Amino acid sequence: MGRRYDTISFLTDYGTVDEFVGVVKSVIRDIAHDVMVIDLTHEVPPFDIRAGSLTLARCISYVPTGVVLAVVDPAVGTDRRCIAIEVADGEGVLVGPDNGLLAPAVAMAGGAGRCVVLTNPEYQLTAPGATFAGRDIFAPAAAHLCIGVDLYELGDPIEADLLLPGVIPLPREEQGALVAEVLWIDRFGNCQLNVGPDEVSAMGEAIRITVGDTTGAPIVRVAKRSDSFFGLGTGALGLVTDSYGMLALALDRRSAALELEIGPHDQVVLEAIADENLGVGTPVTSPVNLRINR
Amino acid sequence: MGRRYDTISFLTDYGTVDEFVGVVKSVIRDIAHDVMVIDLTHEVPPFDIRAGSLTLARCISYVPTGVVLAVVDPAVGTDRRCIAIEVADGEGVLVGPDNGLLAPAVAMAGGAGRCVVLTNPEYQLTAPGATFAGRDIFAPAAAHLCIGVDLYELGDPIEADLLLPGVIPLPREEQGALVAEVLWIDRFGNCQLNVGPDEVSAMGEAIRITVGDTTGAPIVRVAKRSDSFFGLGTGALGLVTDSYGMLALALDRRSAALELEIGPHDQVVLEAIADENLGVGTPVTSPVNLRINR
Amino acid sequence: MGRRYDTISFLTDYGTVDEFVGVVKSVIRDIAHDVMVIDLTHEVPPFDIRAGSLTLARCISYVPTGVVLAVVDPAVGTDRRCIAIEVADGEGVLVGPDNGLLAPAVAMAGGAGRCVVLTNPEYQLTAPGATFAGRDIFAPAAAHLCIGVDLYELGDPIEADLLLPGVIPLPREEQGALVAEVLWIDRFGNCQLNVGPDEVSAMGEAIRITVGDTTGAPIVRVAKRSDSFFGLGTGALGLVTDSYGMLALALDRRSAALELEIGPHDQVVLEAIADENLGVGTPVTSPVNLRINR
Repeated sequence: MGRRYDTISFLTDYGTVDEFVGVVKSVIRDIAHDVMVIDLTHEVPPFDIRAGSLTLARCISYVPTGVVLAVVDPAVGTDRRCIAIEVADGEGVLVGPDNGLLAPAVAMAGGAGRCVVLTNPEYQLTAPGATFAGRDIFAPAAAHLCIGVDLYELGDPIEADLLLPGVIPLPREEQGALVAEVLWIDRFGNCQLNVGPDEVSAMGEAIRITVGDTTGAPIVRVAKRSDSFFGLGTGALGLVTDSYGMLALALDRRSAALELEIGPHDQVVLEAIADENLGVGTPVTSPVNLRINR
Repeated sequence: MGRRYDTISFLTDYGTVDEFVGVVKSVIRDIAHDVMVIDLTHEVPPFDIRAGSLTLARCISYVPTGVVLAVVDPAVGTDRRCIAIEVADGEGVLVGPDNGLLAPAVAMAGGAGRCVVLTNPEYQLTAPGATFAGRDIFAPAAAHLCIGVDLYELGDPIEADLLLPGVIPLPREEQGALVAEVLWIDRFGNCQLNVGPDEVSAMGEAIRITVGDTTGAPIVRVAKRSDSFFGLGTGALGLVTDSYGMLALALDRRSAALELEIGPHDQVVLEAIADENLGVGTPVTSPVNLRINR
Repeated sequence: MGRRYDTISFLTDYGTVDEFVGVVKSVIRDIAHDVMVIDLTHEVPPFDIRAGSLTLARCISYVPTGVVLAVVDPAVGTDRRCIAIEVADGEGVLVGPDNGLLAPAVAMAGGAGRCVVLTNPEYQLTAPGATFAGRDIFAPAAAHLCIGVDLYELGDPIEADLLLPGVIPLPREEQGALVAEVLWIDRFGNCQLNVGPDEVSAMGEAIRITVGDTTGAPIVRVAKRSDSFFGLGTGALGLVTDSYGMLALALDRRSAALELEIGPHDQVVLEAIADENLGVGTPVTSPVNLRINR
């Protein structure tokens, strides 16, 4: 018997309108009666592996010791692999499809230890259809891990470097500017970038932001650095250091994503302000967009 | 004292925007401190007894031993009956309004055992208004069952055949075609029909689908049988055996419901393809709708 | 060591699309392993302190003995205070921002006992950004209270009368009419007013309702008193005594809020019907709006 766990952290794109999440929890309850399931979220956009992997990466340093069950699985029912990956010397095990969903979280947890492909039918439910691996394959695996079934009992060992990698976009420098990308829009409309505060520290307290591609009419704004949304004041765009330590475009009590008309994957260019009239320290409070063609 | 239970599976049309679900769980926590509540879903469309009953029927073979608390109750506050029904020799008890909501699940669980109308005020909360039976009548009944109060303590016994039946539509044959109905659209837009794979096995691997009524311009498409969504390939309509063993109209990573403009209750006609050019084995990948008047 | 608690009732405006709620529960699980968290709701409209405070006030008499964790916190990251307030001789503790969110619930629970500002960093998480006090300040405080850390260990005592009060609007009489306000629209479209049944008992069983301000074209309807929605019959507007003992404008299986085009904060004037033709006891079933200029 292996180590036991008493918490499963659970993330999917199932939504909560259907009964999928409840059925998975029912399966877990039947196998591992005393385990607590913590819902991270089930509102990953349908089929969006990247969004799911980024969400999981944001969560991973907070989830309790135990099993992480993550399912965003557009290729369910095909021969894509179902996997489980130990991290942190077995402090945690991540269970899900081998499509890159788990990879960034595994990396943030220090890299993969033992890995297994979930091929042992003894630890799966027989099912009338093949389209609900969360219920029939992943949840039983997670639950059996909790009650002490060893990872290698669940199927065939596999080398970690044979698993599909995840993709986290990196910003790039271009003619003195930093070309970044929106990773995540949260409920409040804050737009997390793939840029940390240190990467723009030389640009000063007010930074020129350009969103939109070069073919259309990009929106150019000045965003001031801030530690809080409220501190921005009404209407002023900010670059707030968010709760994960990344920069986020933000407004006070309004959605920056709506105002800038941007979403995940969109490009955001950050530049120091050359113009003295908009230099460091100049208060920037105009909510008016400057639309220019360049 | 009766049998004890430690799990309540919970389904409603309450939504999660208001505090209704939380208040019900609070009431349960106060009465039956160690019971785990598993949310099946709370997003049954408001007042939609049929949708709720179908969801519950899909869940019932997965819910753990224990109590099922189900509330879709448009007639709350009137003299409609509040009931509890034992199934499977007391392995489970279903609690909810007597409006057909519980009936299909009870049937799938092997039929009703002892039944009771929840009339005993000793096991109800006094309430400032009569519109929240989930909080005041159903949850206290479920929680008291968990702590060992016998079913018959909760009110007046009633014969099962006096309870309101549920209605599950059956497909019918008509001139060689199978006239089916959409039971459920899931989050991904898959359209579950009231037809199992065996009922169309003679129609081959590609089946003609007609949706829309006869007065308008029905959509006619060819759907190929598949065990997975991904296996359909881009744009091809499929008849996938879903996770409950029913046929579902589906597309790969897109919503079949949106493309076919159908919803629950809508009619879908399935026919074998006579035309040799669209016969069994012919790959059908065109996403173009063929709209005909007939 | 102080008293211990084993339940945290949890309300926020975080939504469930992001992972915020899951991360907070993860933090709680790490600190107070055996505590049950009951979600009241996480769908308070973003930044809407009043809506959150009213929701919490509706819940407070139902939440189990324990800690209430409530976060609607537009000024997160500024110097607004984070507080914890004992109520009912320590039967409960409310934790959240000092912005009025907790005040109505505290009042309904009998008023504040000991209060503290959460300034002790020993019971907070170090964080890469200051924008997620739910995770870094409030949840750790709630969890530590559960495991027996005394309230005064969490920071600096403060007098209750220095805390920000909440605002609950009161109806006012004006020329024989009662000028009320919509407090809450629930999922079903019922419009809870800040008026109890006793306040309109002299107006009879059918009451004239005027919504909309005086400058436009107000909607005037007659609403009949009822104990249930179903009892209203199709299309008839009702004043139903809701589950919290307040009057709510309602329709049977339809949204009164949509039909009357009203939302929280909107004014509703209630008057006795003078006109004999629309007097008490007259059945009123017309769904047609009478729009008048006055």
